[in-house]
Amino acid sequence: MNAEIITIGDELISGSVLDTNASFLAGSLRAIGVEVTWMTSVGDDESNIKDSLLSALERSDVVIVTGGLGPTPDDITAEAAAKTFGRELVLNKEALNRIKELFSGRGLEMTPNNEKQALIPAKAKLITNLVGTACGFALREKGKLIFFLPGVPKELARMTDNSVIPILQRENRELVKFKTATLKVFGLSESKIADLIRDIVERSEPAKISFLPNYPENHIKITARGINDQEAIKIVSKTADGIAEQLGDYVFGRDNQTLEGVVGDLLRSNDHTIAVAESCTGGLISQRLTNIPGSSDYMKRGIVVYSNEAKVDLLHVPAHLIDRFGAVSADVAERMAEGAREFGKTDLGLGITGIAGPGGGTPEKPVGLVFISLADEKGTVVKSYNFRGDRTQVRLVTSETALDLVRRYYLNV
Amino acid sequence: MNAEIITIGDELISGSVLDTNASFLAGSLRAIGVEVTWMTSVGDDESNIKDSLLSALERSDVVIVTGGLGPTPDDITAEAAAKTFGRELVLNKEALNRIKELFSGRGLEMTPNNEKQALIPAKAKLITNLVGTACGFALREKGKLIFFLPGVPKELARMTDNSVIPILQRENRELVKFKTATLKVFGLSESKIADLIRDIVERSEPAKISFLPNYPENHIKITARGINDQEAIKIVSKTADGIAEQLGDYVFGRDNQTLEGVVGDLLRSNDHTIAVAESCTGGLISQRLTNIPGSSDYMKRGIVVYSNEAKVDLLHVPAHLIDRFGAVSADVAERMAEGAREFGKTDLGLGITGIAGPGGGTPEKPVGLVFISLADEKGTVVKSYNFRGDRTQVRLVTSETALDLVRRYYLNV
Repeated sequence: MNAEIITIGDELISGSVLDTNASFLAGSLRAIGVEVTWMTSVGDDESNIKDSLLSALERSDVVIVTGGLGPTPDDITAEAAAKTFGRELVLNKEALNRIKELFSGRGLEMTPNNEKQALIPAKAKLITNLVGTACGFALREKGKLIFFLPGVPKELARMTDNSVIPILQRENRELVKFKTATLKVFGLSESKIADLIRDIVERSEPAKISFLPNYPENHIKITARGINDQEAIKIVSKTADGIAEQLGDYVFGRDNQTLEGVVGDLLRSNDHTIAVAESCTGGLISQRLTNIPGSSDYMKRGIVVYSNEAKVDLLHVPAHLIDRFGAVSADVAERMAEGAREFGKTDLGLGITGIAGPGGGTPEKPVGLVFISLADEKGTVVKSYNFRGDRTQVRLVTSETALDLVRRYYLNV
Repeated sequence: MNAEIITIGDELISGSVLDTNASFLAGSLRAIGVEVTWMTSVGDDESNIKDSLLSALERSDVVIVTGGLGPTPDDITAEAAAKTFGRELVLNKEALNRIKELFSGRGLEMTPNNEKQALIPAKAKLITNLVGTACGFALREKGKLIFFLPGVPKELARMTDNSVIPILQRENRELVKFKTATLKVFGLSESKIADLIRDIVERSEPAKISFLPNYPENHIKITARGINDQEAIKIVSKTADGIAEQLGDYVFGRDNQTLEGVVGDLLRSNDHTIAVAESCTGGLISQRLTNIPGSSDYMKRGIVVYSNEAKVDLLHVPAHLIDRFGAVSADVAERMAEGAREFGKTDLGLGITGIAGPGGGTPEKPVGLVFISLADEKGTVVKSYNFRGDRTQVRLVTSETALDLVRRYYLNV
């Protein structure tokens, strides 16, 4: 069973928006053994939509179309599909009721524009969208299935998981099983990783290994297919375990794990609490830690000290230290970590100071210079770094390094 | 002049790698007035490459192909192109010499694999790659130009700027000019915006208006073409101004402006400073404000109070208020804003408390309930909201609403 993906939208072909949907869909289909052979993007243009639908139907068993189902006049996918296949557009009552409910639930008035979103081609099967007003639908032409889904990535993802995949699985019970595993690495470059696992990559068949840089992390994806789930899982796990062994503690997580989630789990399982004092990262570390549901159990407070006065007031960093060594210095980072821990009455304190740029650098203290300090009841460590990149990259790699320092603290306990 | 982009690679259609090349190329072409109407991705498969080339040649004036020019056996684009157009593959001496130089410059030995990269179809024009071993080439079929470029984004970008764009500009001196403007809106739904500007959209020709939802913002993109830059700019500006007037102060910015940047500009031009006390957003607002270079001029401190104790300690929120009304209450938000301002010695103080979920909700205080408060020297306002969505969405829309509250504060001054 081979599939084709058509993504529709002027924003895609003009280059203003990166198409993440096609890639997401391909990955989801691959996971159930459906291989994507073509991807096409066209604008919100009736004739091009029609041509792409007809070509796809010609060469593929399943077609998945996304985009152009919104409420605005430029959204014409449903209409174009109806015309292409000689069907009427009919008002779907179930869809209309759901849109009405969505609006009243939000205390908003429904506009006539939204009513348009309940129009789907005759004899199409409605695919319910639980998170937005655009409906999806599926229709069969020449015995082949064509799905139409909205272009909003979140809505698309939910509808793919809840409807498209189960329908395809019912359609073809003999699908080969794909399984994947992802290893998440921080602290090794892509080429260093490739070097370290060269032997494993060379004899990895039937598993396939791909490298996905995800700044500042590197992810390694292992894919295998088997005649059943167990076989595929066995091949994937064996390969993943081999790579993980080779890369050691540079691997911080797998699959959906995040570094902040791993750090949170470590704090929780050690019954520890943490407080964070940030300068150059401006709240990014606190924000990452608190992104995890339930993080209030261990993340007690974050202090963003963007002025020297705040460092003195909130963390009792001695003013003479700032005068003598500068706000970006090992001594100040240490006192920030200690101050965060002391006033937060937490087990750990994290202190970060640095120069994120683009301004503020000097020959002695260039942009990218960062000090990260971690304090516990026994003492305080501080490390200095020279990161490269723009402001966003420096902030990101700093937050990653700080979180990784906490992770490694527990490796050594 | 319309163009079509074909990206080739198994990694693209399997969903393991996101295709950024097509989007980059579309933006580069658009900037010189060449409109992309189709984008296609196929795997490293001779028959699909051939079909995609022939279809593209049928409907487009210019075709740009990327990928499959590497040294490994799965890279077959040059060979497939030669076969499609009935040409021989010939060794290009200039290309071979350059590859040899690249290797000796790096102190590496050239492998026979790399020699393969100097084979290009007969009568094709070499497009030099200054940064990698893959050659590009261009050929003319049926009077139309087809470019072949490597898939490595960095090499592609350089070759596009240095060769493809100049060739196309020479090819067509009459290229129309495209100009775009983007309006950024917060606080109106996509369908509400469509309603409000229906008249403008209907009579927008020759400008084109598209809607780009960018949660929790909505962006409106206006594109126009003219025979010269001035004409295109005039059309775009007139349309953008008309929409901006209609949507009033829901438009917070244009083009590359961000809400945090606009808020920063307002603080700076009013010579004001701000301190932020966050609970449910966990540092997101501080992080957004400090993402702007130079923000230390106005952003003095951020406090992430994830425990009641921190609220009492750092902001002097009276414990009896928390006991009586709960940590998520209008009274606590007010005291947080006032505490942030008072202890930060800033002009403004922002206080945020709420329930981001997924846990922590009760019938009286459901997930999504958020209080946002803004304090200045004259007094304190507090507003309550019931946001929908998952944890990430609630945090994001809360941060946006809080920043927008600061922006609107200056609208009323």
